[in-house]
Amino acid sequence: MPTYKVPLRDMRFVMNELLNFPAHYASLPNGEDAVEVTDAILEEGAKFAENVLTPLNQIGDQQGCTLKDGVVTVPEGFKEAYQQYVDGGWPAISQNTDYGGQGLPHSLGMVLNEMICSANLSWGMYPGLSHGAMSALEHHGTKELKQIYLTKLIEGRWTGTMCLTEPHCGTDLGLIKTRALPDADFETSNGYNISGTKIFISAGDHELTENIVHLVLAKLPDAPEGSQGISLFVVPKFLPDTSGEVGQRNGVVCGSLENKMGIHGNSTCVMNFDNATGYLVGQPNKGLAAMFTMMNAARIGVGIQGQGLIEVSYQNALAYARDRLQMRALSGTKAPEKAADPIIVHPDVRRMLLTQKAFSEGGRALIFYTAQLVDNVEKGADEGKKEADAILGLLTPIVKAFLTEVGFESTNEGVQILGGHGFIQAWGMEQFVRDARITRLYEGTTGIQALDLLGRKILMNQGEHLRSFTKQIHKYCQSASQQEAMHEFIKPLTELNKEWGDLTMKIGMAAMKNREEVGAASVDYLMYSGYVTLAYFWAQMAEIAQQKLAKGTSEHAFYQAKLDTARFYFQRLLPRTKTYAATMLAGADGLLAMDEAAFGLAFEV
Amino acid sequence: MPTYKVPLRDMRFVMNELLNFPAHYASLPNGEDAVEVTDAILEEGAKFAENVLTPLNQIGDQQGCTLKDGVVTVPEGFKEAYQQYVDGGWPAISQNTDYGGQGLPHSLGMVLNEMICSANLSWGMYPGLSHGAMSALEHHGTKELKQIYLTKLIEGRWTGTMCLTEPHCGTDLGLIKTRALPDADFETSNGYNISGTKIFISAGDHELTENIVHLVLAKLPDAPEGSQGISLFVVPKFLPDTSGEVGQRNGVVCGSLENKMGIHGNSTCVMNFDNATGYLVGQPNKGLAAMFTMMNAARIGVGIQGQGLIEVSYQNALAYARDRLQMRALSGTKAPEKAADPIIVHPDVRRMLLTQKAFSEGGRALIFYTAQLVDNVEKGADEGKKEADAILGLLTPIVKAFLTEVGFESTNEGVQILGGHGFIQAWGMEQFVRDARITRLYEGTTGIQALDLLGRKILMNQGEHLRSFTKQIHKYCQSASQQEAMHEFIKPLTELNKEWGDLTMKIGMAAMKNREEVGAASVDYLMYSGYVTLAYFWAQMAEIAQQKLAKGTSEHAFYQAKLDTARFYFQRLLPRTKTYAATMLAGADGLLAMDEAAFGLAFEV
Repeated sequence: MPTYKVPLRDMRFVMNELLNFPAHYASLPNGEDAVEVTDAILEEGAKFAENVLTPLNQIGDQQGCTLKDGVVTVPEGFKEAYQQYVDGGWPAISQNTDYGGQGLPHSLGMVLNEMICSANLSWGMYPGLSHGAMSALEHHGTKELKQIYLTKLIEGRWTGTMCLTEPHCGTDLGLIKTRALPDADFETSNGYNISGTKIFISAGDHELTENIVHLVLAKLPDAPEGSQGISLFVVPKFLPDTSGEVGQRNGVVCGSLENKMGIHGNSTCVMNFDNATGYLVGQPNKGLAAMFTMMNAARIGVGIQGQGLIEVSYQNALAYARDRLQMRALSGTKAPEKAADPIIVHPDVRRMLLTQKAFSEGGRALIFYTAQLVDNVEKGADEGKKEADAILGLLTPIVKAFLTEVGFESTNEGVQILGGHGFIQAWGMEQFVRDARITRLYEGTTGIQALDLLGRKILMNQGEHLRSFTKQIHKYCQSASQQEAMHEFIKPLTELNKEWGDLTMKIGMAAMKNREEVGAASVDYLMYSGYVTLAYFWAQMAEIAQQKLAKGTSEHAFYQAKLDTARFYFQRLLPRTKTYAATMLAGADGLLAMDEAAFGLAFEV
Repeated sequence: MPTYKVPLRDMRFVMNELLNFPAHYASLPNGEDAVEVTDAILEEGAKFAENVLTPLNQIGDQQGCTLKDGVVTVPEGFKEAYQQYVDGGWPAISQNTDYGGQGLPHSLGMVLNEMICSANLSWGMYPGLSHGAMSALEHHGTKELKQIYLTKLIEGRWTGTMCLTEPHCGTDLGLIKTRALPDADFETSNGYNISGTKIFISAGDHELTENIVHLVLAKLPDAPEGSQGISLFVVPKFLPDTSGEVGQRNGVVCGSLENKMGIHGNSTCVMNFDNATGYLVGQPNKGLAAMFTMMNAARIGVGIQGQGLIEVSYQNALAYARDRLQMRALSGTKAPEKAADPIIVHPDVRRMLLTQKAFSEGGRALIFYTAQLVDNVEKGADEGKKEADAILGLLTPIVKAFLTEVGFESTNEGVQILGGHGFIQAWGMEQFVRDARITRLYEGTTGIQALDLLGRKILMNQGEHLRSFTKQIHKYCQSASQQEAMHEFIKPLTELNKEWGDLTMKIGMAAMKNREEVGAASVDYLMYSGYVTLAYFWAQMAEIAQQKLAKGTSEHAFYQAKLDTARFYFQRLLPRTKTYAATMLAGADGLLAMDEAAFGLAFEV
């Protein structure tokens, strides 16, 4: 069975040495509380992830969820683990103190989330989906809705879901058929009757909690066509009674569970709404904006899933590579006392391990940086908010899509390191691959993230937000280039940072003539952007490591490994930008040339 | 449920228009038979694959195999399908006429194999493993062994297996512990007692046939250490009686079935040999050479699995992309009569589809070309044999590893095109991914293939075999460059073909100083080689298409699609060589720098 140790040393490196979280927290209102509790949260979170969640991960995969007589049963131990999570006060840590939250910065919740995603992704999605619901209610709900629903979600007594997708539409939510009609006594009740079918609803039904709060997209009567006519509703599984406690059953049931490739421990439900009572969240027909509040948080959350799975796959692949004896090193025996050398001596095995290590640690730096931006947008001083929001918007699709793409690659390297054993369920490595596979799909596929990045976040503002970020990189390069030892990193980073702007300009120009050029370039553009972004963080980490090594440190091996990993990233992973730089400019014509009918002529007779 | 149509049009394009199979067959002894039956084999094979095997594929995945009271049961319908296969005479088509075979060229069996791999990979492995066993017996068995075992395998009444891997060793077969002791009455019996445990034995046990013929690696008493001391034995499940029919049960049993990520329909067995009677195949301690006879055929077979899975994934992704309505094209509505445009209008969906199409059709060309080399090595005229053998040896690891790596990528694109539905079992797309995952591992991982290519097949003969192939490409480029219309293909192909040699030289020089440079470069080198090799075939296919289009053809759309796909390959996939060219030269130092202990310092406290 796979094991997992929370990488506390590296988390502290990123928080304290790379990103100066203490100073960051000090800049936030009540930030001193965060500084004070950070260590306790890291350590208690680690215990929970390692001792409670990790042992349940493979059980969850093997047992899955079942639906019987209208009741969804989750795998053994999941409910007890959830109760421990609630008892520990974890659901509340980053939430609003007005509704029972602890008011700590969101970044602390995101650090905790990495641990949960590594330990047990399927379990993590039960409390995880609540975060989206809390976020939507916090930003768009009335005080009354918050009082009733947000308090219970923060307490963890209820969980939340996001009900968007329908059988015929996922990406294109303007097509939804779910309808919301005002109640007969709307004037007094403010209630709506919601009817329709939603699919792929993660944590859609279960018995972990006494109630479930669905955030549901639906159309009001006479709503405009398309995405400008969708509204967001809160629809509880049980209607609260006058004291706010669980009352009458509402008209929402789990119709069936999906059989799926991975995340078996999470209940992925078809949810049928049949005249279910719901309440509007935000303005009529403005549901898309409210939804994006949930969605942006969820997208970063999925990026964390990708990175968390790399970390746990790496740890287990490393253990195997140290243990498994097979062949001698090409340059001569390394372990003469053994029947063969441990496979970690082979350069190609190291290439795979270092790929995992570089993406996990680089991804962690990117995510924790993004977490600081979330803090700044939510609670920071006004003067920095606009730029933080711009860069956060830019990085969100990169965090989501890039880290899940390399997450899938890296968990597959984990399987590859184990050879045939990687394919065997008992080793647990293939579960990480199956679980990782969904992360490239849900909350918007990689293709959708790429359109969001290139179309919405960059070209729509003529690259202004991108320039905020590339200027930051440029400034860093100018300063770091003062140090001779940094040239190996700063030279390629400077060139790529410039090329990033040039490529953007070229695609922007092409898109002015033909809008299809955006879709033709977008995924390659996103991947390119991801590699450059990670290079920025790896350069900074290399700089810290070099300084520590130059000064002398009792942790020489740790910093040397950091520097070696940075070099690996620049030598072996960053050159992938060469291909993307070429293919993103290949243009739309080559993709659009073929007649739709001609795609099948090789096999349709 | 996924569907599958055998791409007969494209198979005929490759066989007749690209590779001139009729002339090739005419050059072989009794080749006119092959010409005559080709169409019937394609058409009957297609019926069998489409109507018998395809409907059983998802059933096989869902039911898997079971072991109860020592009996392995395969999924419903598998046994009946196997009987139809035997009744159709399929096991015999490429086999030796002296032992009941039809004596047709191996290439015809390989064409048929593509169909089987697309239709039902797990089922295909039951007869598929027999091919390795037949090949080993054909080349290394005594006349007596052939008479007893080969005849039954050719008839299909018995199937075969390859028993190599043990719990502690897979790649490093020199470490095997299975022992073979001469019988008490060895002088008369020629028999050995075989004892040991083999794992990961595909089709290791089942009730499809009355007997199973295991080809087993074991060590004789006083065998030299390592891989120079292994011998190959034939060990039947039931010992043949004096009439050659099934007699007494032998000491070999299935200890357990592996639970695995995919290929659920195939029984992957732990096989326990307990004083089982076996007979030597080939010379004592020369088992490795005999094993490689099986292994090379098996490796090409695995490459076909990779390509076959791309094809079926493509066909189903295409059907979905034509059907699914989601968003409007960025350049404006394409299907105003519908609620949204079919997703095939979106450039990024086309990019994914064309990636599948280009790898499937390019892979087919490569495999069928390899199949001709197999024919030439097995049955061709003496003067061409040496070069055919050299190029076949060179291409075998490329076929195996490159086509399974891009096969895994492409089946994943198939999932991606379906979005969330791709993750749902009922759609069948995720099964192709899980089934494809094993192909990167078994019969030697990608890393092992890469070492075979760069170390054994290239550097060990100072690049002589590679030069045979690059000269062939060079000649082709010189001739095709006469046509202006071909410049878009010939210019990059010429450059890459030259670069291939240059890169090989550089790595060879580096490896003379440090042998670890081979392992450090090998996988990137293999992938680079695969892209260049496929470019060679795509250029030739583009040339044929251009000529047909220039002359005028009733199949304009087919040839235009071929040309468009060639362009896509050159514009979007071939630029991946840019990255590999850089990373393969990054050197071993960056991989070997890190102390083994330092790999874990981020999480080990």
